[in-house]
Amino acid sequence: MADHTRLTEIDPDECLRLLREESYVGRLAFVVDGRPLVLPVNYVADGSSIVFVTPSGTKLSALRDGAAVAFEIDQSRALYHTGWSVLVQGHAHEVTDEDEIARLQRGPLRSWAEPKAGHWVRITIDEISGRRVGD
Amino acid sequence: MADHTRLTEIDPDECLRLLREESYVGRLAFVVDGRPLVLPVNYVADGSSIVFVTPSGTKLSALRDGAAVAFEIDQSRALYHTGWSVLVQGHAHEVTDEDEIARLQRGPLRSWAEPKAGHWVRITIDEISGRRVGD
Repeated sequence: MADHTRLTEIDPDECLRLLREESYVGRLAFVVDGRPLVLPVNYVADGSSIVFVTPSGTKLSALRDGAAVAFEIDQSRALYHTGWSVLVQGHAHEVTDEDEIARLQRGPLRSWAEPKAGHWVRITIDEISGRRVGD
Repeated sequence: MADHTRLTEIDPDECLRLLREESYVGRLAFVVDGRPLVLPVNYVADGSSIVFVTPSGTKLSALRDGAAVAFEIDQSRALYHTGWSVLVQGHAHEVTDEDEIARLQRGPLRSWAEPKAGHWVRITIDEISGRRVGD
């Protein structure tokens, strides 16, 4: 282990706050044919799940229902070598309920690539952890 | 497929330029026990590989030699719903050659968490692709 680590853990409540309030783009990692992939998505989060919308025809469409995923947000300041990151592990499910889709479509979230379309996906927050470097 | 997609592909040469010049933090995705993980790393890139340094005792230490990984960088502007991202797929190898480690230690890259230590890891750039939204 390190002698001089500048890493500290962020508690789960603060991780959830960072997820809800401090970022609008996260990176989703998933596995396709045994290989990891990671793509950015704009998202919204509440206390128990993360929702994003993904355009048709991208690799994200390959996400199978119930697929294990990881979702990450971070912020960094290069000059000071400081930053934080939050990691969520959970499972992805496409939103298929029409009432829920209609409600999501009235909300603030849009696919940047396809403002009028896209697949809505919800990720469960099964585990959440975070760490801070420096400061 | 979408009627109104605002996505365009970025050619590989421009992807490599973005990787070398336009970012200093990327997100590394890998698979541990069948589950995807994704963590931020600060990195440097040349034309054929990406190097980062990771502190001891983190999940990154679990990366097995030759592990399949994905590496992503992005930039976004919320107000205009524009941005770009680059995705690399490759394999990770810990740098064990002492001369190479000495050379890397004289370079600009430091572990933010552990400025005097860490594992050096090199990722091959087997595939690279990118996309731009809007603009």
